[in-house]
Amino acid sequence: MSTEKNIPYKIYLEENEMPTQWYNVRADMKNKPAPLLNPGTLKPMTFEELRPVFCDELVRQELDNDTAYFDIPQEIQDFYKMYRPSPLVRAYFLEKALDTPAKIYYKFEGNNTSGSHKLNSAIAQAYYAKKQGLTGVTTETGAGQWGTALSMACSYFDLDCKVYMVKVSYEQKPFRREVMRTYGASVTPSPSETTEVGRRILAEHPGTSGSLGCAISEAVEAATSLDGYRYVLGSVLSQVLLHQSIIGLETKAALDKYDIKADIVIGCAGGGSNLGGLISPFVGQKIKGEADYRIIAVEPASCPSLTRGRYAYDFCDTGMICPLAKMYTLGSGFIPSANHAGGLRYHGMSSVVSQLYDDKLIEAVSVEQTEVFAAAEQFARVEGILPAPESSHAIRVAIDEALKCKETGEEKTIVFGLTGTGYFDMVAYGKYNDGEMTDYIPTDADLEPGFAGLPNVD
Amino acid sequence: MSTEKNIPYKIYLEENEMPTQWYNVRADMKNKPAPLLNPGTLKPMTFEELRPVFCDELVRQELDNDTAYFDIPQEIQDFYKMYRPSPLVRAYFLEKALDTPAKIYYKFEGNNTSGSHKLNSAIAQAYYAKKQGLTGVTTETGAGQWGTALSMACSYFDLDCKVYMVKVSYEQKPFRREVMRTYGASVTPSPSETTEVGRRILAEHPGTSGSLGCAISEAVEAATSLDGYRYVLGSVLSQVLLHQSIIGLETKAALDKYDIKADIVIGCAGGGSNLGGLISPFVGQKIKGEADYRIIAVEPASCPSLTRGRYAYDFCDTGMICPLAKMYTLGSGFIPSANHAGGLRYHGMSSVVSQLYDDKLIEAVSVEQTEVFAAAEQFARVEGILPAPESSHAIRVAIDEALKCKETGEEKTIVFGLTGTGYFDMVAYGKYNDGEMTDYIPTDADLEPGFAGLPNVD
Repeated sequence: MSTEKNIPYKIYLEENEMPTQWYNVRADMKNKPAPLLNPGTLKPMTFEELRPVFCDELVRQELDNDTAYFDIPQEIQDFYKMYRPSPLVRAYFLEKALDTPAKIYYKFEGNNTSGSHKLNSAIAQAYYAKKQGLTGVTTETGAGQWGTALSMACSYFDLDCKVYMVKVSYEQKPFRREVMRTYGASVTPSPSETTEVGRRILAEHPGTSGSLGCAISEAVEAATSLDGYRYVLGSVLSQVLLHQSIIGLETKAALDKYDIKADIVIGCAGGGSNLGGLISPFVGQKIKGEADYRIIAVEPASCPSLTRGRYAYDFCDTGMICPLAKMYTLGSGFIPSANHAGGLRYHGMSSVVSQLYDDKLIEAVSVEQTEVFAAAEQFARVEGILPAPESSHAIRVAIDEALKCKETGEEKTIVFGLTGTGYFDMVAYGKYNDGEMTDYIPTDADLEPGFAGLPNVD
Repeated sequence: MSTEKNIPYKIYLEENEMPTQWYNVRADMKNKPAPLLNPGTLKPMTFEELRPVFCDELVRQELDNDTAYFDIPQEIQDFYKMYRPSPLVRAYFLEKALDTPAKIYYKFEGNNTSGSHKLNSAIAQAYYAKKQGLTGVTTETGAGQWGTALSMACSYFDLDCKVYMVKVSYEQKPFRREVMRTYGASVTPSPSETTEVGRRILAEHPGTSGSLGCAISEAVEAATSLDGYRYVLGSVLSQVLLHQSIIGLETKAALDKYDIKADIVIGCAGGGSNLGGLISPFVGQKIKGEADYRIIAVEPASCPSLTRGRYAYDFCDTGMICPLAKMYTLGSGFIPSANHAGGLRYHGMSSVVSQLYDDKLIEAVSVEQTEVFAAAEQFARVEGILPAPESSHAIRVAIDEALKCKETGEEKTIVFGLTGTGYFDMVAYGKYNDGEMTDYIPTDADLEPGFAGLPNVD
C-alpha cells in the first residue's frame, strides 16, 4: 500500500487542537433560514412561546441567526473528549480498490456506543436541560441512533429520559431498545396509548406501525404535560446543526493541518443534522468567497425531500402540534415505503440546509437503496468499517465521484461524512445479502397526498 | 473534570511509533510451555505433522520458543493502520465515579467492525495463508468475534472463509452471522452433517446445541479434507499470542511515552489470546527482572480453567482429532452452563498463559456474571463504551482493585484490556436489565466428568 508522504491513514487532532466553539453558519448566510411560525397565529415563534417545549438556552440558540460562534461549555468539551476527536480517515484502501486518482477522506463519527454523530448534540441538549434544573427530557427515535445517543447523554448527567420509538423499529430493533435501557432510558413504542395524540392516531390508523412524525407529536405532548421535562430533537432544528458543526470544524482543522484542500464535500441527508454540521464551515467559506467547494447532499430516492419536495412551510410532526417550519418537504403526511431500510425517513429537511439548497450553495442527489448497499458492502470489505445504511448514501456518491475522476484523470479531493456504523442494521444487510432488497421510487402521484396536506402559508 | 497534567483522555501512538515487530514471550520464559503432542505417538508434534493443518509460516511461529521478535510483514502493518493504533484510554470518568485515587487506563480494542482484538491475529493468519497460495481457510467461532474478524481478513486478501459457528450462537446471534456473510464468508451451524465428526457428535448427542470444542473438530476436519485449505484458530495457540502481542507492545509504548508505570495489569481470559497478548511485554520485563507488576487473569466462575482446572495434557477439541496441549483445563468434555453469557467458554487455556500461571508470574481470579454485568453497566454509563461481556470480566476486577485503593488511599496505576464491544450481546444485557440473569458456579462434582476424560499423559 503506497501512502502519500506525511498523510497518515487516520488524522487525529490533538486534544489542544479540538474546537472550543461551535460555528453557527446562519450568522454568515445572506438569506437567513425562515423563522419557525406559530401554527395558530402564523407569526414567528417567540422565546416565550418556545420555552415550554425546549430548554431556555436551546431556544436562544435556535432563534439566534447572528452569533457566529458559541463557546462549548467545559462539561461538554470534557464529554467530547470521551469519544472525540473522531478520525479523519484517508481511504487509501478504497482508492486502491477503485483505482482512482481521486483522494478520498471520510470523517468517521461511528466510534462511540450510540454508533453515530448524534451524540454530539445529545450531550449538549442534556447539559442545558441539567443546567436548567430539569428532571428529564422526552424525544422520539426512528432507527434508534438518536435515542441511544440521548440515553447515553442523560445517563451521564443523571437525567430521566423517555424515548418514543417508532413502533416498527421498536419491534424490529430490540437490541437498540436494550442499549437504551442499559443506559437507563424508558422506551415506549409509538404510537402509544400514553398520549392523547397517540390515542388519536391509533384510532384513525388502527394497526399503524408508526412514523417519525407521530413519535415527535407524542414526545412533545409528553414533555409539555410533565413537570420539569422538555422535548429534545436529534435533527432538523438549527440548534442541532450548531452542535453538529463540531464535525465540520474538526474535519476542516484536520485538513488544514496537512494543507489539504477539499474539492467536493458529501454528506447524507435525512433531517440534515450530519450534513449541516459537516458542511457548515465549508459553506461558510463559500458564502464569504474564501474558498469554493462542490457540496452534495445525498438522500434516499424513496424519501426525496430536497430533490422532489416543495420549499414551503409545513408541520414538523404528524400530529401537527409543533411549530411550522419552512423547508423542503414532502408533506407531514408522507411516510416512506415500508421497503426503505435505515433512517433518513423524515418528510422534511432542516431550514438551514433548505435555504442553502434554495440558494444553490449546495447540490442534492437521490440514490436507490440497492446501489447504496452495494457501496456499503464494497466499503466494508476494503475499509474494514461496516457502515450504517444512512452513511452509505454518502459512500455511494463518493464512490461515484471517484469513478468519474478515474475517467477524467482528475485528482480531486473528496471528503465525505461517515456518520455511523451498521451493527444494528443487519436485518437490512441480510436482505441485501439474500438478494431480497428492492428499490422504490415514489411516482408523482404517490407524492401528491403529502403535498395536498401542506398548510396554506406563504 | 480535572485531568492530570499532560495526560490526555486517549493516548494514540503516531503511525511511526507503532510496533513493527511482534514479541514472542516464550523466548524469555525460563520454563518453556510444554510442546503440542501427537495424540497417537505422544511425541512432540513436528513441523511436518502440523503442516497439513496450519500454514507453514504459522507452524514455524507455533514451534519457535527462541526468537524473541518477529518482523510484522508490511502488508499486515498496512492493514493494522486501518484500525490501529488502538487508544489507551485514561478512565478519568470511571475514576471520578469510583472516587478512587487509583489511576485507571484501558487499552480499547473494540473500534473495528469485528468488535474485538481478534482481528490482530486474523489478518496475520489470512496473510500467511494467501502468501502460501492457499484457496481458503476454515475455523470455528463461538460468540462470533473471531469468525467476524477472520471474515474481514479473508475478504481483504480474497481468500475463501468457512466458519463453523456453535449452533446455539448461530441461532441466537443471527446478526453476527450476517456480518460474516457481508464479508463473504460461509457460515455453518455446528455440529453439522457436513463433516464426519459432526455426524458422529450429532448421533451421540442428538439435539445438542454445540460447543467450541465440537466446532473446532469440524473445522479441522474440513480443512484437512479440502485441497488448498488450512485451519486457523483465534486463541489458545502460541502463534495467536505472538500476533496479539501488538496489544501489549502498543500499551507499553503509550505508557512509556508519558512516563507512566503500571502497577497492575488485568485481562480477561478465555483461551488466552487477549490476556497473553496484553501481558507479554510486561511479563517479559518481569521475567528479566526489569520491572515488577501484578498481573491478573480474570475468568468466569462458570468456566474456571485457571482457578479450578488441572495442569495437564488434554485434547484441544471435543472430537479429539487435534494435538494434545498441556494446559490448565477442565477437560475437553466440559461445557459451561447454558446460563453463561458471552465468550470465555473454552475448557482449556493457552499453554503459554498456563505455564506463566504455574510459575506464579501471573495471578488468576474468577468472577460471577451478574457482578460482571453490573461492572459493564457502570462502565458503559460513565465511559460511554458498551463493553463485551468478555471484556467486562476485566472491568469488574479493575473496579474492585480501584475500590481497594480507595480504602487504602494508594494511588496505584491499573491497566486493563478492554477487548471489545457488546453490540451483539444485547440478549444478555436484556436479561440483566430484566433482572433475569443468574449465576452458576459448578460444584466439584460438576467438574469431575471433565477431569475423568483427561488423557493419561505425563
